[in-house]
Amino acid sequence: MRYLADLKEGQQTVDIYLCANKQILKTRAGKTYYSVRLQDQSGTADAKIWDLNDGINNFETGDYIKIDASVVSFQGGLQFNIRRLRVADEGEYDPKEYVPTSQFDIDQMYRELLTYIDEMDDEWLKQLASKFFIEDSRFKDTFKGHSAAKSVHHAFYGGLLEHTLGMLKICRFMASTYPQLNRSLLYSGALFHDVGKLKELSTFPIVEYTDEGQLVGHIIIGIEWISDKIREIKGFPETLANLLKHMIIAHHGELEYGSPKKPELIEAVVLHYIDNMDAKIMTFTSLFKDVDEKDDWAGYQRLFEGNIRRTRY
Amino acid sequence: MRYLADLKEGQQTVDIYLCANKQILKTRAGKTYYSVRLQDQSGTADAKIWDLNDGINNFETGDYIKIDASVVSFQGGLQFNIRRLRVADEGEYDPKEYVPTSQFDIDQMYRELLTYIDEMDDEWLKQLASKFFIEDSRFKDTFKGHSAAKSVHHAFYGGLLEHTLGMLKICRFMASTYPQLNRSLLYSGALFHDVGKLKELSTFPIVEYTDEGQLVGHIIIGIEWISDKIREIKGFPETLANLLKHMIIAHHGELEYGSPKKPELIEAVVLHYIDNMDAKIMTFTSLFKDVDEKDDWAGYQRLFEGNIRRTRY
Amino acid sequence: MRYLADLKEGQQTVDIYLCANKQILKTRAGKTYYSVRLQDQSGTADAKIWDLNDGINNFETGDYIKIDASVVSFQGGLQFNIRRLRVADEGEYDPKEYVPTSQFDIDQMYRELLTYIDEMDDEWLKQLASKFFIEDSRFKDTFKGHSAAKSVHHAFYGGLLEHTLGMLKICRFMASTYPQLNRSLLYSGALFHDVGKLKELSTFPIVEYTDEGQLVGHIIIGIEWISDKIREIKGFPETLANLLKHMIIAHHGELEYGSPKKPELIEAVVLHYIDNMDAKIMTFTSLFKDVDEKDDWAGYQRLFEGNIRRTRY
Amino acid sequence: MRYLADLKEGQQTVDIYLCANKQILKTRAGKTYYSVRLQDQSGTADAKIWDLNDGINNFETGDYIKIDASVVSFQGGLQFNIRRLRVADEGEYDPKEYVPTSQFDIDQMYRELLTYIDEMDDEWLKQLASKFFIEDSRFKDTFKGHSAAKSVHHAFYGGLLEHTLGMLKICRFMASTYPQLNRSLLYSGALFHDVGKLKELSTFPIVEYTDEGQLVGHIIIGIEWISDKIREIKGFPETLANLLKHMIIAHHGELEYGSPKKPELIEAVVLHYIDNMDAKIMTFTSLFKDVDEKDDWAGYQRLFEGNIRRTRY
Amino acid sequence: MRYLADLKEGQQTVDIYLCANKQILKTRAGKTYYSVRLQDQSGTADAKIWDLNDGINNFETGDYIKIDASVVSFQGGLQFNIRRLRVADEGEYDPKEYVPTSQFDIDQMYRELLTYIDEMDDEWLKQLASKFFIEDSRFKDTFKGHSAAKSVHHAFYGGLLEHTLGMLKICRFMASTYPQLNRSLLYSGALFHDVGKLKELSTFPIVEYTDEGQLVGHIIIGIEWISDKIREIKGFPETLANLLKHMIIAHHGELEYGSPKKPELIEAVVLHYIDNMDAKIMTFTSLFKDVDEKDDWAGYQRLFEGNIRRTRY
Amino acid sequence: MRYLADLKEGQQTVDIYLCANKQILKTRAGKTYYSVRLQDQSGTADAKIWDLNDGINNFETGDYIKIDASVVSFQGGLQFNIRRLRVADEGEYDPKEYVPTSQFDIDQMYRELLTYIDEMDDEWLKQLASKFFIEDSRFKDTFKGHSAAKSVHHAFYGGLLEHTLGMLKICRFMASTYPQLNRSLLYSGALFHDVGKLKELSTFPIVEYTDEGQLVGHIIIGIEWISDKIREIKGFPETLANLLKHMIIAHHGELEYGSPKKPELIEAVVLHYIDNMDAKIMTFTSLFKDVDEKDDWAGYQRLFEGNIRRTRY
Repeated sequence: MRYLADLKEGQQTVDIYLCANKQILKTRAGKTYYSVRLQDQSGTADAKIWDLNDGINNFETGDYIKIDASVVSFQGGLQFNIRRLRVADEGEYDPKEYVPTSQFDIDQMYRELLTYIDEMDDEWLKQLASKFFIEDSRFKDTFKGHSAAKSVHHAFYGGLLEHTLGMLKICRFMASTYPQLNRSLLYSGALFHDVGKLKELSTFPIVEYTDEGQLVGHIIIGIEWISDKIREIKGFPETLANLLKHMIIAHHGELEYGSPKKPELIEAVVLHYIDNMDAKIMTFTSLFKDVDEKDDWAGYQRLFEGNIRRTRY
Repeated sequence: MRYLADLKEGQQTVDIYLCANKQILKTRAGKTYYSVRLQDQSGTADAKIWDLNDGINNFETGDYIKIDASVVSFQGGLQFNIRRLRVADEGEYDPKEYVPTSQFDIDQMYRELLTYIDEMDDEWLKQLASKFFIEDSRFKDTFKGHSAAKSVHHAFYGGLLEHTLGMLKICRFMASTYPQLNRSLLYSGALFHDVGKLKELSTFPIVEYTDEGQLVGHIIIGIEWISDKIREIKGFPETLANLLKHMIIAHHGELEYGSPKKPELIEAVVLHYIDNMDAKIMTFTSLFKDVDEKDDWAGYQRLFEGNIRRTRY
Repeated sequence: MRYLADLKEGQQTVDIYLCANKQILKTRAGKTYYSVRLQDQSGTADAKIWDLNDGINNFETGDYIKIDASVVSFQGGLQFNIRRLRVADEGEYDPKEYVPTSQFDIDQMYRELLTYIDEMDDEWLKQLASKFFIEDSRFKDTFKGHSAAKSVHHAFYGGLLEHTLGMLKICRFMASTYPQLNRSLLYSGALFHDVGKLKELSTFPIVEYTDEGQLVGHIIIGIEWISDKIREIKGFPETLANLLKHMIIAHHGELEYGSPKKPELIEAVVLHYIDNMDAKIMTFTSLFKDVDEKDDWAGYQRLFEGNIRRTRY
Repeated sequence: MRYLADLKEGQQTVDIYLCANKQILKTRAGKTYYSVRLQDQSGTADAKIWDLNDGINNFETGDYIKIDASVVSFQGGLQFNIRRLRVADEGEYDPKEYVPTSQFDIDQMYRELLTYIDEMDDEWLKQLASKFFIEDSRFKDTFKGHSAAKSVHHAFYGGLLEHTLGMLKICRFMASTYPQLNRSLLYSGALFHDVGKLKELSTFPIVEYTDEGQLVGHIIIGIEWISDKIREIKGFPETLANLLKHMIIAHHGELEYGSPKKPELIEAVVLHYIDNMDAKIMTFTSLFKDVDEKDDWAGYQRLFEGNIRRTRY
Repeated sequence: MRYLADLKEGQQTVDIYLCANKQILKTRAGKTYYSVRLQDQSGTADAKIWDLNDGINNFETGDYIKIDASVVSFQGGLQFNIRRLRVADEGEYDPKEYVPTSQFDIDQMYRELLTYIDEMDDEWLKQLASKFFIEDSRFKDTFKGHSAAKSVHHAFYGGLLEHTLGMLKICRFMASTYPQLNRSLLYSGALFHDVGKLKELSTFPIVEYTDEGQLVGHIIIGIEWISDKIREIKGFPETLANLLKHMIIAHHGELEYGSPKKPELIEAVVLHYIDNMDAKIMTFTSLFKDVDEKDDWAGYQRLFEGNIRRTRY
Repeated sequence: MRYLADLKEGQQTVDIYLCANKQILKTRAGKTYYSVRLQDQSGTADAKIWDLNDGINNFETGDYIKIDASVVSFQGGLQFNIRRLRVADEGEYDPKEYVPTSQFDIDQMYRELLTYIDEMDDEWLKQLASKFFIEDSRFKDTFKGHSAAKSVHHAFYGGLLEHTLGMLKICRFMASTYPQLNRSLLYSGALFHDVGKLKELSTFPIVEYTDEGQLVGHIIIGIEWISDKIREIKGFPETLANLLKHMIIAHHGELEYGSPKKPELIEAVVLHYIDNMDAKIMTFTSLFKDVDEKDDWAGYQRLFEGNIRRTRY
């Protein structure tokens, strides 16, 4: 398929895109038309259907739609004028092509993630990690494809996996460099810190907060999930369970960021910083993708509470 | 027994008290002596053992000790000079006499609490409340005797029960007055909001934070407990479980007070205020017990972030 | 009259509405037209006068205008195209029909409010309340019709009365349940806490901050008013006056919310929570009136600093 | 009289001092003795009465006591050992000698203050100032002798007058330099900003918060006082009254410092800074009086939220 | 030239203006047109070039352009329709006419500023001030023309000079009135407090943050500049250098406003307030220039965190 | 020598210690005695000189003193009763033995630090680092021996070096793992982030804030130092200098922690976290050295704003 980002003014396209949003509007003259947001993994584009004739079949937000459209330029951007449209059949398209996706191979990242479980010395924590990441195939599939966030950092298919793996790499280095850190606990903290997001956020292509996500939040969702699996492991030490739960609970670092406890273990302190480092580097990099190559500054960014700058001179 | 608070300068006592604290010290002259804090339900008193002779048997903090002592006055307070001491045998004393206790009858309060469960319309929530407060006799016993806090408000045997009942009364009134409130959800919020404290704080006579309490905290402990019981109820609606969990999660009202979510349901908003009202009225009343009857002002109180005053004129 | 909310596309109306706002604009082609906001108690509507002919008499914002208009649909909403317009004469309309009004009977609420004054034990406070709510008929009339706020909670005719009465009900319950509370002081706090709003906000149909309201604020306006009335009561105890003033001063609960003192009396602590409970329940209920019946979540709400949800499952 | 600060080890004194505090204590050996804090305008000193014989008459905190004592050195400080003591008769002493007092002549400062009232252009504000500072002789006397604070800045007899005058000087300069400032309003703000302190704090020699001071606070006390006097001035413009009240209300600058409104008038903005400048310069100067001459740094000072340094090099 | 602010609907103008901004847009019909913001010292105006014919020469943002245009009224404002346009040659215009400029004579203000340097007692600080303000002619020129801010206060040609002089006047008064203040240090603080802005902000006509300004900030830029000059003065006391640096570092008053140290010297405390007073008076005055003469209130103002009001009655 | 930490009750010692503090006090009976704090690298101990006879020579705080003392037990701790004392001669003792010192070899750490300079790609930054760490031998010596803090983390001889090296290790890992990070800039940030501390804190054995340290602070001291060296490098790019300065300025991460700019470069963001991680791991480890081996919890720790726990189970 030809990605939206590659189409240019004056071209025609007959291809399938995700309808990310559909609105029914009226012109000043009172004529009804549709405003449609098309999406594929390269991004989104604005489209209009001015003439609601027989060539335009019924469709809704969330449908994959096959369109016949011409690309025009309007107020500095491109606009797709759709002449014909029908909902595509399953099989006609590959849903993965319609969501932003990690640039790394997902299965390979996952295999790499498993090597960290191998490295864990503590048999209880290792067994727990295996129960999730090796034995529970439904968890495995969801985890692989999940986004780490609704927007901001790692907001793409495989994002949570990529972010977790990024953290694990730093964890490995820190545990090797500072022997006072408990490696197994630190790895477990990285592996599980955001598993609650699998239920807090719905899955691609539409990533939204779920009812449970808004009412309970990923920290507590994650804790409950972990408790359930721990219950399946006979003899799992209660104190160890509490230490692990504390890692998850405290990973936001401050009460006002939603952690009901501040870090009380050195591994929890470190995990909080590692989470921030990986997430902020990715966000920084991703924010500058939308900044004109000739500009050094990206303007005010809420996440960084200020203006940010490319490092070049 | 004669309570510590009733003893006066010049009197003798041969009675059993809880040793709440024992320290080994030395006089300036280098002689070893013991400083002991005696406790019963009327309060605590300072005692000394100046002469470590044969009449003084071995004992430790936490022991119930039978002492032979004379009461003297020292620097504006009373001091017990202990001459003889032995650890009391179980059966010689009633532990309840050594902890501050609710002024209300505990069993009667508990029976009253059960009437609120009766009133609940929602069968799922009613069943859940029954599982805890009626069917689980171990829970019942612990709940009856627990303190609502390490210090501050309702810090006595039966304190959590008294506080929960106090909240339920206001909940009943609010649910009757504002029909838009869901009575069952509000009652459930009151009943369960602090059940995690049963594991966060150790039991009388020594109330301390447990390891689990410090690492995980009573909010999440409570959530997990509730989840466990819900799992035993087949068909319990998942959404309802999330609403109830939210009631517990949000009852501190603000992230910086340790709630990982701010109240998002009107019942959660109301529960937060009801919790505060009952707790603050009790704290206020209790703080003024230690203030000289002739003084209107109690001086700076951390909980109220200022000076507080008796209401009289 | 036919309310704005009941009119539909394609209908004609010849009726009187309040002109809540009038703007003189120009079309792209340079032709002058008027944009008018119509108001009645059912809400507001957008109207245009495209043709400024003889049928359109002079009028200003704040006038009650009789219009002859047709209702058309424009960009998803309705628009009134006005062909003829004249200012209505007093007597042709009932101003109450043009402001949002409490759903409860105002006189009956007021009678109920007076029963609380009856219940007050303290003769001084009772006498003071009578001076305002019984003897001062101008105060009585203004109080009955006032809004509790410019927007947000109880922002309708009779809103302050409804809110005060809501608080009094909870006060009665609290004073009965917690005998340590001074009933008369608590009731007085509820009755007087917002009387300053009668001068802080102008009256319906246009509710705006007055100059005095912005410079001095309703807390201090209220205090001065109370002082004036107290001065008329010979022998009113000075200390009692200070306690009552403190109730008003502290009812916002925190310095940063505009209370120059934090609550120092237990009745002031409780009044602050009662004020919040009644106000927040009403706000919650009112916010969801504008939310689509099929949606559970109302989206981010500034007053609750987050998203809020209907309680249903 | 010989001031406490001038007495040295080994000397005898037979003189009258204020008993700022009296405590009844016991020695380790159980013997009762009195610990007394003596005060005069040079400061305070620690005294003991070891032998409670016939030469020691009854006395209480607040009494002026004539003592016969010898000065000894104890743990790096001086201690007065009192052998004989009786309460002095009025007339035997001049109370002013027992309180710290402004170094400037109070009547002369007051005369200077009146010149600012002369300068006021606005006849209403001038008349109001006269009602307080010229016509009300009781106000005048209290104002002259009052402290500007319980401790910290200008905490001495005449302190409020000295501080008010200091502010007026800056006000005069600012009004001359910035013609957009309303001179009369600015002067009035300075004159009245702390008049509420006359009732918030009790008078020398014992400066404590009054009941009214704690419950209502000097800002609102001041506002009520001003309102009372304004009522006596027929035709005083209501808007002007509100502007003046705003000056008082907002002079703490921020809600969290107890101002229920932030400054909304430029004169209120400026007054807030002028108040701070005069108060902080005096505090700075006064803090360094207690710092060893050879030290540059005074150590952490709560008012300045940090360490402060003498300016010298 | 005829200033933009003086032109009226229906007039023609053939004159030179600064092109503060140029945008290329399209009409709904797809036709390209230019939207141009014209600027001179009287303000800015909106212009359009609908017909991109031969009479319209190439030009860019930042150019001084000679235009032939007619003034029309559009949606309540004026719009310039440009028919012919060319870039003006240097010499055809005086850049000073195109930037907002202090209403005071810049050279005279500068001469007045020098008198303060004359008054300084401390020879080291005087010598330092001379090195900047007398001997360094490039500094002198930049300082004279600089803006004190990107927007808000003193945002005009000569603004920094006017603001510095305003502060010096207050400094002189304060040093005379409070002898404990070190005059030379206080004057130096005023002179140097914002010199870093000469590099933090680019110069007129386009005032933007420089790269250095954003990365390093005017406080540290100023410190480095001062250090450089101090190094040229043999024997300059190191302690004095530190005191002066502290004046600059601390002038924002609080860490959260970007001062890495809170004021520790009394002169630093005072300088902070003087800076605020002059800046806020100017901002207040300037904000009301844009408010309708009949309105008392200016609406919410971010700098004052609230609504502000003219002082009149 | 025998370290203070190794001496036990009942032993005698004739050895040299640092007098960290000397106080002249009096017993109750009025007899003068000295209270002395002894220090060596194992810690500090309390000593008394009861008998000020000829065997006790003159000495001051900061002297190395040779004492003849016996060790007694007093109130749960040890006390040294000094019988004879004289100031030791230089040469009799090795100052390094009297300050806490890094457990790692300082020269070896320094050699390792130099390898990071080798790795830097950017020739300008490399040259700058060399100017400090290789060519400036006085800097080198001070840097090697300096403490990273007055107390808290790395508060020992070699502490700054150890901390800097710890950060560099993490920097190397991060630069290798995240290619978008500029390695040279990140290393330079670590190398220079605290060099200002060499002047902010005095050197061992007495580590106190210097006058410059308190007035100016290590961030700005460091910036000035770096600027001075940059000036010696002809052609050093100005933009690069600003980027580097920003790294130093922003390393505290937040304005309220004393950084006048929040991190605007991704390397500055990362450096801030790396600084925290290394410092907090060391503090955590060091705090638990003083906690009884049998306790899991260390109690409230200001730096972590809460209780902290050993990781064991």
